[in-house]
Amino acid sequence: MKKKDNIGCIRLTLKQCAKFLKRHDNYIILTHASPDGDTLGSAYALYYGLNEIGKSACVICPDVIPKKYDYFVRSTDHVKRESSTVIAVDVADKRLLGDLKEEFGDIVDLNIDHHVSNTEFAKNLYLDADASATAEIIFELLTLMKVNINDITAKALYTGIATDTGSFKYSTVTAKTHIIAAMLHDYNINASEINRLMFDTKSKKLIDLERQVLETAEFHFEDKCMLLCVTAEMQQQTGCSGTDLEGIAVISRSVEGVKAGVTIKQTSDEEFKVSVRTYAPLDASVICKKLGGGGHKGAAGASVKGSLAEVKETVLSAVKECMEEQNAGIFTAE
Amino acid sequence: MKKKDNIGCIRLTLKQCAKFLKRHDNYIILTHASPDGDTLGSAYALYYGLNEIGKSACVICPDVIPKKYDYFVRSTDHVKRESSTVIAVDVADKRLLGDLKEEFGDIVDLNIDHHVSNTEFAKNLYLDADASATAEIIFELLTLMKVNINDITAKALYTGIATDTGSFKYSTVTAKTHIIAAMLHDYNINASEINRLMFDTKSKKLIDLERQVLETAEFHFEDKCMLLCVTAEMQQQTGCSGTDLEGIAVISRSVEGVKAGVTIKQTSDEEFKVSVRTYAPLDASVICKKLGGGGHKGAAGASVKGSLAEVKETVLSAVKECMEEQNAGIFTAE
Repeated sequence: MKKKDNIGCIRLTLKQCAKFLKRHDNYIILTHASPDGDTLGSAYALYYGLNEIGKSACVICPDVIPKKYDYFVRSTDHVKRESSTVIAVDVADKRLLGDLKEEFGDIVDLNIDHHVSNTEFAKNLYLDADASATAEIIFELLTLMKVNINDITAKALYTGIATDTGSFKYSTVTAKTHIIAAMLHDYNINASEINRLMFDTKSKKLIDLERQVLETAEFHFEDKCMLLCVTAEMQQQTGCSGTDLEGIAVISRSVEGVKAGVTIKQTSDEEFKVSVRTYAPLDASVICKKLGGGGHKGAAGASVKGSLAEVKETVLSAVKECMEEQNAGIFTAE
Repeated sequence: MKKKDNIGCIRLTLKQCAKFLKRHDNYIILTHASPDGDTLGSAYALYYGLNEIGKSACVICPDVIPKKYDYFVRSTDHVKRESSTVIAVDVADKRLLGDLKEEFGDIVDLNIDHHVSNTEFAKNLYLDADASATAEIIFELLTLMKVNINDITAKALYTGIATDTGSFKYSTVTAKTHIIAAMLHDYNINASEINRLMFDTKSKKLIDLERQVLETAEFHFEDKCMLLCVTAEMQQQTGCSGTDLEGIAVISRSVEGVKAGVTIKQTSDEEFKVSVRTYAPLDASVICKKLGGGGHKGAAGASVKGSLAEVKETVLSAVKECMEEQNAGIFTAE
């Protein structure tokens, strides 16, 4: 086991990770806040897998789990905090544990993740930054452990992979991703129904919101940056909130010629959640780091305080800086 | 070789299909009109494959090929009509040959297709209705023929499969589809860039159009049917036409609870193209057959004459009939 920068964080191999799971018991599996398909799919697949080998485990999510994941979410075991082994899945930073940060942030025994930006906050870490999703890692882990995979486990894993790759569209997808998807298709997962729920189902209220958001569209830096706003008023008026808003950020990058799509979503009077989506060579995580956040190369986020006008200015400055740094000569500033 | 209903149409096996291609030469490869990624990807992959084994071939498309396919479209050989062997790919009905129907409709020597609705108009037919895309068949054919697959061939094949499955989302996707995708990932295809071009790139004018189309949204039959209209005026005002409008039909089925999404697109003063998208158990091809058209279970189309109001009524009647026939007791009429 090789020590890395952060004192106390031991980097495990997949084999060591499997051994760890076989050796311990009474697992508390943590997801990140504002849960998505990958953190939930990974957590539940791991839960079902651990159950299969007779381990006791529970899944704890910092936020309410959206109803659309009901097809693989079940009530889990009761595990006492005192004698537990704490696992985090798909959690790059302890701050992403949200309301669970205080209680668990410093006592995570094992973190399984695919974010290159992982801050090594756990005691042990299995990180595969080449995996398209943490669920891809969980599949490999369960396979290595020779754990029986049930239909519901396969559904959870497929969900994690499909959602984190935008349905196999992103550059993170490899031949391995498709081979795992092929293997999951051998189970009774009804993939098209999962995809319908995850990608192609919008509420009437969301269609309303999208229309309003499109009206806020601004283009900057020779149309290479598109900026969208979701104000508190729009959220109130349409009744859209939380995970309803997940898909908005995708729109910001979908316009021809746009290299950086920015969505500014009001979370309180003077606070905004900024979502950045980029195309190479622009790196969204570099832009968001300037704003105190982080994430992946193509998709990252940050929380920024101020008025809408101030936040817009701050974010656009960061985008501009990044365009200049990463593409001197390609992009010219506005 | 087994004779089927239509006099003169011989159903081939994949092996017979491979033999056919090895035996003949001077191929004219036809795509269907309003070409999509599958018919074009299949045609060009077959062209590159035939070239690899020393055959002369050209691709003829009834319509202008949209620029977005430039990454795999090249100028092809010149093949004389008189001494040629005519192949159609992804063409379910000779009417789909559009302006080429007169010249080629009755002299297609080999048709390679995956539409269950294929009308057997060609002399020889290889039909695999279980294939997610005709490109999936072409991949198997080239593999069986041990033809060298180049990067550009792989790009064409990946495009066909990805576009016809909505990026691996539809119920037509099988384990085999993903295995082929995995094998294509081994070539230098830059899949994420293909996906960006095919799925995630909208022009500013299209975003404008979408907003206008959303304003026409009507809900019928207890919100189980959503109807959208694209008038000639909208097309003129935004400058959107032809393939720009492809994605609109998808929106019609994307609202929660909707089982039938209908898009009515004006093509001339008194003519409308109707696109129907359904979820099981509703069958879009049954609805469109009533309107004189056809297609797949989940996606079908028809051309209907009349005023917008008349066409709406005709289409809604067909949807209603179908809901009653296919789902007596599930759906109640408005």
